[in-house]
Amino acid sequence: MGISDLTAQRLSVYLRCLEDLARSGVRSISSQRLAGRLHLNSAQIRKDLACFGEFGVRGVGYYVADLREQLTRILGLDRCHRVAIVGAGNLGMALADYGGFNSEGFSIVALFDSDPAKVGGRTRRDIPVEPMESLPEIARREHLGIAILAVPAAAAQHALDLVGRAGIRAVLNFAPAPLVPPPGVILKGVDLAVQLENLAYHLSRGVAGP
Amino acid sequence: MGISDLTAQRLSVYLRCLEDLARSGVRSISSQRLAGRLHLNSAQIRKDLACFGEFGVRGVGYYVADLREQLTRILGLDRCHRVAIVGAGNLGMALADYGGFNSEGFSIVALFDSDPAKVGGRTRRDIPVEPMESLPEIARREHLGIAILAVPAAAAQHALDLVGRAGIRAVLNFAPAPLVPPPGVILKGVDLAVQLENLAYHLSRGVAGP
Repeated sequence: MGISDLTAQRLSVYLRCLEDLARSGVRSISSQRLAGRLHLNSAQIRKDLACFGEFGVRGVGYYVADLREQLTRILGLDRCHRVAIVGAGNLGMALADYGGFNSEGFSIVALFDSDPAKVGGRTRRDIPVEPMESLPEIARREHLGIAILAVPAAAAQHALDLVGRAGIRAVLNFAPAPLVPPPGVILKGVDLAVQLENLAYHLSRGVAGP
Repeated sequence: MGISDLTAQRLSVYLRCLEDLARSGVRSISSQRLAGRLHLNSAQIRKDLACFGEFGVRGVGYYVADLREQLTRILGLDRCHRVAIVGAGNLGMALADYGGFNSEGFSIVALFDSDPAKVGGRTRRDIPVEPMESLPEIARREHLGIAILAVPAAAAQHALDLVGRAGIRAVLNFAPAPLVPPPGVILKGVDLAVQLENLAYHLSRGVAGP
């Protein structure tokens, strides 16, 4: 079951697309048409899915509801992951209320901050801001499985260590800093600048090309 | 020069790594050691770079300063891109002050919002919030090349259309909504939930695996 990170990311994108299709009332889709929607080639999609079994149906392609259910299970989204956000600044508050994070598979339980002025507040979706010291107790009581780090770069390693000591085993880091995960903790970083640089690349090709 | 999106994204990651190395005083690095730092294989790195010329030096690997300069040029970061953020809510304010965005290659000039209560404010880095109606004029005067959409999903297509009419040709969208770009506009979406789902996937493999 050891698929690569990029494959897992593509499965997420497939799932999002299937959710859109289901909402639009589409019941089945050919791998060619699915590929067209995703700007991928259909061989890639068939290869990614083949790791997990035989999902395509000859002459039909994929049944949307069926494939969606399978991908939900494969991605571990058939159970709800309880999430803490560390840092209740603009980014933490934005992430807490971000539509895409409050889907079926995830529930943002609380934000944590060391600033007493922020503690006691709530986001627009009514998620509470708790003091940093309460993290271990709330993590245990609320079965928190994932933490999102939305703290300044200089505070990120310390926050990561606290999260690890609280028993949270998966961390998504937004701080632009290279971090060392505590033993047993899965760490992923989101580097927002990569996306902006990618856009700059396309822009410079289009505008400045010889 | 038609390299794929994923290659361009990897070049960004290489550049970030070279910047770290330069800061640490490292002057040259073998492709094996560079690969090790990036969790990639060295053949991939050599292949990605080979699209743009011959950068490696036999017996040395890569000269950090030299490769960094070349990548900066290839990615179009040798000139400054002037950026507008549309939406001055929590996400827009967070992105305006995000360290990674205010690097040498990018300058965030202004935020735009349709809410009169937000207009006239400033971020912690002192970036002003302007009224949405001023976008065309400021875009022209300030030579804005990139817009970041940080508006609610329901408002995103309208904001994108306004950005296109203001003559901005590259857009990074954070709203969790599928958008149709106006003609001549390059659109990229950042789906933050994909990263969270990827973490859930790893967590479910690690925890629940048979």
